[in-house]
Amino acid sequence: MDQFIDRLERSIVRRGTPVVVGIDPHLSMLPENILPASSAGTAPCSEGWDDRRLALAMQSFCRGVLDVVTGLVPAVKFQLAFFEQIGPAGASVLADLVQQAHRGGLLVILDGKRGDIGSTALAYAQGMLGAGSSSAWGGDALTVNPYLGDDALEPFVQTAQERHAGVFVLVKTSNPGGRVFQDLIAEGKPIYRHVAALVEQLASKHLGKCGYGDIGGVVGAVYREQLAELREAMPHTWFLVPGYGSQGARAADVAPAFDPRGRGAVINNSRAIIFAYRRREYERFGPGRWQEAVEAATRDMIAELRAETPAGRIGLE
Amino acid sequence: MDQFIDRLERSIVRRGTPVVVGIDPHLSMLPENILPASSAGTAPCSEGWDDRRLALAMQSFCRGVLDVVTGLVPAVKFQLAFFEQIGPAGASVLADLVQQAHRGGLLVILDGKRGDIGSTALAYAQGMLGAGSSSAWGGDALTVNPYLGDDALEPFVQTAQERHAGVFVLVKTSNPGGRVFQDLIAEGKPIYRHVAALVEQLASKHLGKCGYGDIGGVVGAVYREQLAELREAMPHTWFLVPGYGSQGARAADVAPAFDPRGRGAVINNSRAIIFAYRRREYERFGPGRWQEAVEAATRDMIAELRAETPAGRIGLE
Repeated sequence: MDQFIDRLERSIVRRGTPVVVGIDPHLSMLPENILPASSAGTAPCSEGWDDRRLALAMQSFCRGVLDVVTGLVPAVKFQLAFFEQIGPAGASVLADLVQQAHRGGLLVILDGKRGDIGSTALAYAQGMLGAGSSSAWGGDALTVNPYLGDDALEPFVQTAQERHAGVFVLVKTSNPGGRVFQDLIAEGKPIYRHVAALVEQLASKHLGKCGYGDIGGVVGAVYREQLAELREAMPHTWFLVPGYGSQGARAADVAPAFDPRGRGAVINNSRAIIFAYRRREYERFGPGRWQEAVEAATRDMIAELRAETPAGRIGLE
Repeated sequence: MDQFIDRLERSIVRRGTPVVVGIDPHLSMLPENILPASSAGTAPCSEGWDDRRLALAMQSFCRGVLDVVTGLVPAVKFQLAFFEQIGPAGASVLADLVQQAHRGGLLVILDGKRGDIGSTALAYAQGMLGAGSSSAWGGDALTVNPYLGDDALEPFVQTAQERHAGVFVLVKTSNPGGRVFQDLIAEGKPIYRHVAALVEQLASKHLGKCGYGDIGGVVGAVYREQLAELREAMPHTWFLVPGYGSQGARAADVAPAFDPRGRGAVINNSRAIIFAYRRREYERFGPGRWQEAVEAATRDMIAELRAETPAGRIGLE
């Protein structure tokens, strides 16, 4: 099996786009025909909703999303929180969806932002990483949190290399509070630049044919200048860029994440795609045709990135 | 229901000890009679071991640990990584163990070191926090990672308050690499002191009768001076102190974590208790009597803390 980063790059070229669809199944946003609001007006997860019923609704919705985006995009990103939220039943749903995604040729990024020390980090890494290996979850890649330092990242890096998987380390997050610690200045540069330096070093150790490493970085789309700054500082680090769509970033904002050949970044969009039926632009579909809204929103985002970023050059060489 | 921190303090007084037993079921360390090494010499999690068999072994072991420590200690801490490692079957085992712990009157700390932004953090919080509530996992408390900043902690803080649960935020971790980012100096003090200031502020907002808040901090036991420094800087923050036992810390090292009345800290010990049968001090029991080794190691740690730290004053007022 090829290195993760080369599989990702090839899949991007094949689909002609670096769009990643984020599967964040917020219970309160599922279409009515998937999870009807209770007649008593109770919200999901309150009394009267059992985990099994929620799990079936979540499974049905996510399968429907995968049906639409398979063949359109190179990868999907599952947000683990929403599956964990409904307990063991959610775990089974997630395992099933990872298999469906792989059958459809989609790469799977598990967005768990995990992080722990030593043998505990190793347990996370071995459980999460390794499509087609003995890994329980079989992710092609996992997001991890750097706060615990370099030795805590090492088990993820090692396991990724052994299993031809990838890791995306949080560098700069897109939420306003991301500044509170990440932007503190130490030794003349912000903390996120210290994290960036470590990630670039890890990425550089094991480069794929595409010139990038299997250790990537999560860099929020909110700050255009920081994307450009980090793209320059991290020439071997592939970026996973969240924040497109519902968090406000548009194609022009994420353009600096790419190298001149349109490589070096995947752009994630979760809610603005999977819940597109709730957006004014796609209200013509209504909740009953939510899958058509998913497809329209995905195709529109692909077109936006082709028109306004170096990703438009993908597949034209 | 009382605030989390008052339930924790009362439970500590009732048991006469702040010892927390960490349930970290490393597959490779389970006793032979629980998980026999395969005749082919394969390691757990490699080919030939199915998740169901591993889950049953893990369940049997952890139930055995809970049987021993129920009534001896106020709380247990489940390390989520080891349950996640074996996939959906591990999720069911964890849910079962949380229930068993609660039936035995143990408080449950879920050690997941979760962290994400906005509605995703809320999904983690709502899934994990709230014994006896509609929470899927029903933890009394959860560990969280601060790298994403104050707004990312807010959903955990809010949910904890609503559900009478607690949160332990990573402040200073006990691994050597914890220094890499946590000890960088910004605005005249290390990053972990910036995190400490935020945690203390969150803790102070909603104090229990015991004088501490429901928002606690994780402070590793490795650096005695830093424990003392943080105890002084965080007078309303209860500490969860890992690193005792297998990571090298002893009673004298953790003494500064307590206030003069023996309050303000719980001391976690995972491997050196649950796998005590592997330690020279307890080799008299052998693998077959591993539960007796768990009991002996727990009682020894309780005695050490009573003899050498302010925790010896608990229950004597």
